[in-house]
Formats: sequence, C-alpha cells, structure tokens
Amino acid sequence: MKDIQSLSDSRRINIKKVGVKTVSYPVTVLDKAQHKQHTIATANMYVNLPHEFKGTHMSRFVEILNEFHGEITLQSFHRILEKMKIRLEAEASHLELDFPYFLRKKRNGETLVLGYYKCSMHGSLEQHDDLKLGVEVPLSLPIAEQRVNRLPGFMGNWGKADVSVRFRQFFWIEDLILLIEDAVDVEMGKLSSSVRKIPSVEELTRGVGGALEKIDAVQWFSVTVHNFGADCSTFATLESGS
Amino acid sequence: MKDIQSLSDSRRINIKKVGVKTVSYPVTVLDKAQHKQHTIATANMYVNLPHEFKGTHMSRFVEILNEFHGEITLQSFHRILEKMKIRLEAEASHLELDFPYFLRKKRNGETLVLGYYKCSMHGSLEQHDDLKLGVEVPLSLPIAEQRVNRLPGFMGNWGKADVSVRFRQFFWIEDLILLIEDAVDVEMGKLSSSVRKIPSVEELTRGVGGALEKIDAVQWFSVTVHNFGADCSTFATLESGS
Amino acid sequence: MKDIQSLSDSRRINIKKVGVKTVSYPVTVLDKAQHKQHTIATANMYVNLPHEFKGTHMSRFVEILNEFHGEITLQSFHRILEKMKIRLEAEASHLELDFPYFLRKKRNGETLVLGYYKCSMHGSLEQHDDLKLGVEVPLSLPIAEQRVNRLPGFMGNWGKADVSVRFRQFFWIEDLILLIEDAVDVEMGKLSSSVRKIPSVEELTRGVGGALEKIDAVQWFSVTVHNFGADCSTFATLESGS
Amino acid sequence: MKDIQSLSDSRRINIKKVGVKTVSYPVTVLDKAQHKQHTIATANMYVNLPHEFKGTHMSRFVEILNEFHGEITLQSFHRILEKMKIRLEAEASHLELDFPYFLRKKRNGETLVLGYYKCSMHGSLEQHDDLKLGVEVPLSLPIAEQRVNRLPGFMGNWGKADVSVRFRQFFWIEDLILLIEDAVDVEMGKLSSSVRKIPSVEELTRGVGGALEKIDAVQWFSVTVHNFGADCSTFATLESGS
Repeated sequence: MKDIQSLSDSRRINIKKVGVKTVSYPVTVLDKAQHKQHTIATANMYVNLPHEFKGTHMSRFVEILNEFHGEITLQSFHRILEKMKIRLEAEASHLELDFPYFLRKKRNGETLVLGYYKCSMHGSLEQHDDLKLGVEVPLSLPIAEQRVNRLPGFMGNWGKADVSVRFRQFFWIEDLILLIEDAVDVEMGKLSSSVRKIPSVEELTRGVGGALEKIDAVQWFSVTVHNFGADCSTFATLESGS
Repeated sequence: MKDIQSLSDSRRINIKKVGVKTVSYPVTVLDKAQHKQHTIATANMYVNLPHEFKGTHMSRFVEILNEFHGEITLQSFHRILEKMKIRLEAEASHLELDFPYFLRKKRNGETLVLGYYKCSMHGSLEQHDDLKLGVEVPLSLPIAEQRVNRLPGFMGNWGKADVSVRFRQFFWIEDLILLIEDAVDVEMGKLSSSVRKIPSVEELTRGVGGALEKIDAVQWFSVTVHNFGADCSTFATLESGS
Repeated sequence: MKDIQSLSDSRRINIKKVGVKTVSYPVTVLDKAQHKQHTIATANMYVNLPHEFKGTHMSRFVEILNEFHGEITLQSFHRILEKMKIRLEAEASHLELDFPYFLRKKRNGETLVLGYYKCSMHGSLEQHDDLKLGVEVPLSLPIAEQRVNRLPGFMGNWGKADVSVRFRQFFWIEDLILLIEDAVDVEMGKLSSSVRKIPSVEELTRGVGGALEKIDAVQWFSVTVHNFGADCSTFATLESGS
Repeated sequence: MKDIQSLSDSRRINIKKVGVKTVSYPVTVLDKAQHKQHTIATANMYVNLPHEFKGTHMSRFVEILNEFHGEITLQSFHRILEKMKIRLEAEASHLELDFPYFLRKKRNGETLVLGYYKCSMHGSLEQHDDLKLGVEVPLSLPIAEQRVNRLPGFMGNWGKADVSVRFRQFFWIEDLILLIEDAVDVEMGKLSSSVRKIPSVEELTRGVGGALEKIDAVQWFSVTVHNFGADCSTFATLESGS
C-alpha cells in the first residue's frame, strides 16, 4: 500500500536538473603563445527536462563529449550545448568545464616558472547561450623578491583572486590572468618605486574590479579576493554593477 | 600616475560581501536521543556592507562567535546573525555552519553503527531571517544485507542524497535523516517483501521529494540524489514548487 | 579452467594487512586546561594475520571501538590494540587516530583565538606497543603583528611544521604544540628585540629539532617544515639520530 | 642568550631530506595505442644531503624539471634523478610523479568510455636507481551490466585496487591496468558463465597478487584492495614475498 501511494505522489513532482558530474576528460584549449594547450578537464553536463519527461539516458552525455574529441573552443562549446539540448529533448542545457592552465613566465628575470591557474568555462543554452570564463590567480606578497637563492614567490600562499567574466567578444585566458596580476601588483605597490604595502582584501578586490571595468570586452564580472590564514581566511567580493 | 588613477577608479566600485571563511570551531548541537551532541563546525561568516563603507574589522566576526561559546541552537543562531548585523553596521549578515552529525543505529539488528552525516545550517538576516537545514545521507544498495560475517552496508559507496529544507517550525535533524532514509528504502523495495530493485537517481529524487511534500513543517526543500560511478557520477535535482 | 587455476595460485599468497579505514568517530581526549576535549577522530584499524588465516570479520573492528565509547587515553589506546590482537587472532594490531585539537590563546593580547591543530595518535602492538603522537602546527610570519584592526596572523598561510614524537612518559599535547611554536618564534626572531627575519625551511626544521632534543621525555622525533608557495611548496625533514 | 644557544644546538642536527612538493607540471607519457599521451603531473622532488651541507637552492629543482620539457620516459626519469644528485651535491635523489592516465575502451560493446586511472612513477637514485610504477584501478560490481539505457558501470563506486610494481623490463601502463582488471573479473565471475559473486577484499587482493606473480617482468609488487562503504572502507594488502 505504502509503496503505491508514495509512487503516485512522487509522480507529480518534477525533476529540475539531471546529468553527469565530475567526468574527467582530456581537452585542448587555445593558447596565445603556443596555439594549443593540452590539459585535463573535469566536466559537469546536465539538462533541464520538460515536465512530462520521466528519465533520461545518462550515457548520451558522454557520447556527445566523445564526438568532439576534446577540442574545446568557443565554437565547440556552443555546439556541445546545442547537441545536449536537442538529443536529450531538454529546455536548457548546461556544460561546466574546470581545468588547469599553465602560463610560462620569468620570475625575477631568471628562473622560468610555469604558473599554474585553475580555469573554468561554465555555459548554458536556453534561448540564447551564456558563457562565463573563470580564473583563480594565486597571490603572493611583494617582499617575496627580497629572498635570494630561493624559489621566488615563496612567501607562503598569501591568498587568491577568484574572477569570473562574461565577455562581449573573444578574450585570451592569458590576457585575463595578466590583467588581474597587474591590478594586484598596482595595489601592492610592486609597480611603483615607493615602499611596498600589504593591501586588505577589500582594496585588492576593488583594484581588480577597477581594472576589469575599463575593459570594453567585459560585459559582466565578479571578483573575490581571499587571504588565507593559519586559522581561517578572510575574503571580499564585488560584482560589476553592484 | 597609473597608481592614482587606478585608485580613484576603484573607489566607485562597492564591495558586496566581506567576511571570514572556513573557521573551524567546536560546537554543540541539539540531539534528540542524547540532549546534546559535541561536534566541530566549519563556519563562514560574512556581511553585506552599505555603499559608503570602506572596510571592516575582520576580528569582530570571530569575537562574536566566541561570545556564544559554541552553543548552537535556533535561538543562538538568530542572535549571532543579529550581532553581526549590528556590530558590523551591515545591511545583511550571513552565517554558514557545516558539521558532522552522528546517529546511533543498529544495522541488521546486530552491530551498533554510528551513522555519519554531513549537516549544515545556513542562515541570513536582512529584514527577516532565513534558515536552511541541510543533510547529506549516504546511500547503499539493498543487496548489502545478503553478505554475512562482514560489515553491513558494505556494497560500496553507491551514492548520496543531498537535502536542504526550510522549516516552518522546529524539526529534529534525526527525524529529517530518518525520513530521507525511509523514502529511499521504499524506492529500493527494502520495506516490501517483493524483489529488491535498483532505482534510478530520478526515481530516488522523486521518492525523497514526495516524502518531504507530505510534512507540514516543511516550507521549502531541494533534493539532489547522486549515484557515484568509477568514471563519473549521475545526479538528479528537484525543488519544491518546481 | 582459468578460474580454478587462478584460485589455487592465489591461495599461496598471504594477506599482509587487513582492516577498516577512515571510520569517523567522536572521541574525547585529555585537555590540560579543561580536563577533557570533545573532538572527532578518523580511525584506521588493521591487523597482520598469520599465514594460514583466510579472512577476517570486518565488523569486529568497529565493535571493539564501540566498547570504548570514544574515551581515548593512553590506557584505552593500549587496551583497544590488545583487544584487536586477541579477538582477530592477529600477530600485530594497528590503530591510527587523526583528530583536530583546539587550543585557546590570546593573539596580540587581545582577541581570543581558538588555535586549530591537526593531531594524531598512531600506535601498534606486536610484542610491545609503540605509540607516536603527531601534531601539525601552522606557521605564520613575524610581520603579521604589524597589521592593525585585522585578524592577527593574517599574513597568509606561510607553512606548517609536521612533528611526530615517541615519548618515554606522558606529555600533554598542549606542551608539545607550545614547544614547537616557541622554537619557531626563536628562529623568526619574534622573541628577541632585534630585527625579524624570515628563516629557511632548513633553519626552522633544525630549530624545532633542537628544541625537541633537549626534552628528556622525548625518545624519538621526526620534524618536517613546509613553506607553502603559490606554485609549489618547499620542505625539509630531519629525524632524531639522523 | 636563548637565541644563540638554540642556534648552536640545532647546528649539530642534520637535515635528512629537502626539496619541493606538489609542483604541477604538464608531461607526456608513453601510450601503447596512441604513441604519446599528454597529461598533468604533480611532482615531488627531494634529495638527501651530506652532513656538512647547510642548505640548498630550491629553485634548482624546478630548473632541472624545465630542462626536460615534460617528456617523461624511463630514460628521462633516470636522467632527472642523476641531474638532481649531481647539481645539488646530494647522496640520493628522489622524484615522485603522480598523473592521471586515460584508456579508451568499449563498455558493453557500445559506449566508448575513457577510463580514468591515477598513475604514479616514484623513483630514487643512490648507488643504483629504483623505480616503482603505480596504478589505482576503480572497481565496479558485475551486476552493473544488467542496467539498461544507463551509463554502464554505474553501480556505485564499489572500491579500488592500488597496485605498485617494480619491473625487470619495460612494461606498458595499459598492460598493467588490463592485467589487474582481468584478475578482478575472474574473482567476480564476470568471465565465467556461472553466477556472479561479490568477492571479499581479501579474495580480490589475492586474485590480483596471483596474476602479478605469473608475470616474469614483475620483480616486486604490492596490492591493496579497498571496498568503499558509506560509513568506512575495508581493505586488504599483500606484498610479493610476504
């Protein structure tokens, strides 16, 4: 008795989202300096189903991913979303890719360092598509440079800047990373000859936000700067238009 | 030149949220069977600042937490939010507590097992306060019971149900956990004498949602059921009213 | 054919260790200031089986833990190891407990901070028992104190000292933590009036090792100091007698 | 006074290991089917220093890694260890690489699945070099195949087999993975026509160990099979020769 009642009750309740999570997948992304960069993405793929739908074929998500052989560009991103929407007969489709991205740079003009950045492309397609590019930029303190004979930047893991942007037109990941790092350097006084300072998370957040506001290609952004501490972290967030 | 311009630009941009994250803190929560349960919470505390504000005193967050000596009830939760709002002169205050919760139960009528559940209390106070109780219930398969001489429930980590609820009145964490586990057992056929089945994530999500809909104390809920796989996980989500 | 051959082959191969891992369990540990501290341990329990043994009863591990109701002292630790060895008819038994430990302290003579330390008790019993106490002490930079109106110690998560000790006699966790923190302060010049310095991981490792060598109760120790960086971490390790 | 004493004391204590940890680095590894596979490794690099040595130049570790441009073969692995030993004037050098490895396979003869395996190459060079290849193989239950219209293998994350091997001669990562998966299938009865069974962690451990013992190229191995549970995991370990 109980079983049947429960079943008929639950029939009226509609699933909102259904899909696959944390699929590891090798992808290639565009790289300004080297044309292409091979990396490994963690993918979430899910759809919003119309009300009468009773279930979905989970294997189709991975089949669609396979058809693109891991070539992730703005074009393929849109077509994956489109295929998901059509083949799963969905009202909206969502694709979230998180991947490490490496950027070669010289630190102190000496050691070549491979900067490691956690990046993301999170998009969805309902009537129109919507794509956000995200980067996580590690922050170190200005005094780092005073230490000799050691790896530069080794003043501890001071914090990070989490930035998410909707662009009006194509924008290189590298250029976004460098724009954030330059804005942080301005706040820390690294680019001026005067005494270095340790800004607050609020000042750094405003500094990065101010730099993004000046870029025409930027349609919307969100910035959160974290300062890691031994006991807890502090953070400040701002969004464009807020 | 560049410095000053950047500074004056960023002045116009307003911080949206500011606070502390992942503060580990010992707390006691209410326990239906044993009156109180000692556990360890990870706390996020943050506020929305009015526009003219230029920074905040981060140490005040932890000071407020200290004043409550870790006694977390519905009452103290509200008062922490209130103190944060007043002392930081904020428009809104937010407190998020995540903590493990243990529930003693017999499995197969034999071994006493301490069920381990990740719970959360996420609340905010603007004009009114808003509190959501969350639990993460691990799911195992019905065939688990067929194995003898071994730890019951050891059929692998099949998945989990993530449930978040806004209640109209006080509701025990234990009662929420048992309600979810019973709804899962109904879907898996554990409570009937007929053949056990392996439901889909959609069926389980609807089953748990259906059980929550019948409870008067429940004002709003969200249910996501995950099925872990070796390569990736599948999931389905529903919200009340959707 | 293949099956049977494989089976008879594998019969000759003997299992070395068998047990349970990552059991979450509420425990109480001794606290110098407050008599007892409630915390939550992650337990690994395993045994070495004699050669002729074909399997083990996994549920017995958790049964033994239940009999002690989470009261973890040096005495109960030894008795748990003994019960494991007897009831599982094992040649050796192993118990590893990892738990957070909180220490109240004033920072800058002002804000009361609950210091958070990852601690461990790893023991085994073969003919004799062997117990190691471990602590992970977060390290921050001396300049931290210069910042006003902010949470003290917020110069970023500079690094940590991982220390493991075999004691000849009872020693408080608090005293071990304070001994390590004092040794670090000496190296960083925090305790002297002269200019603060940023020591290398090698200097800090030697500083902590030197402090432990002077303590009669210490029979053996291992010290690793890590310096977290944005790109990678550096570390140095020493062991007593090496 | 205290400072100086502490310093002279600590001088007598010698550092055992020093190096860098968790450096993320893009590498290419050999792939049987596709010649080369691009992946991202996490590297630990450290050395044992002779007693009189007072410190080391941390940046040299990353410089050496850079010289190899991420081409990781058995040959380059040995040469990295050699360069570390020489340039850091060390008694022994250690290199540990952990990286995801993908293997294309058909599941149920239908969907192409990219199997995801955590692999490792851990080596050291003192007088001779020593290299261990490690793979972590996810385990699913045989009944998985009974589910239709869903992603195959979705019976939950039953467990994993952690295998580490010293080889006498070159051996493909793919061949090691397939050997482990076949041995597991034998124990689970997947390869026979008779009824499927759910083996214990002890049986699976012996099954994988038995398969490795028959391979001439295997000089030494260690096998641990884990069964994940909602509350805790069980495991069994064996080593060759034990």
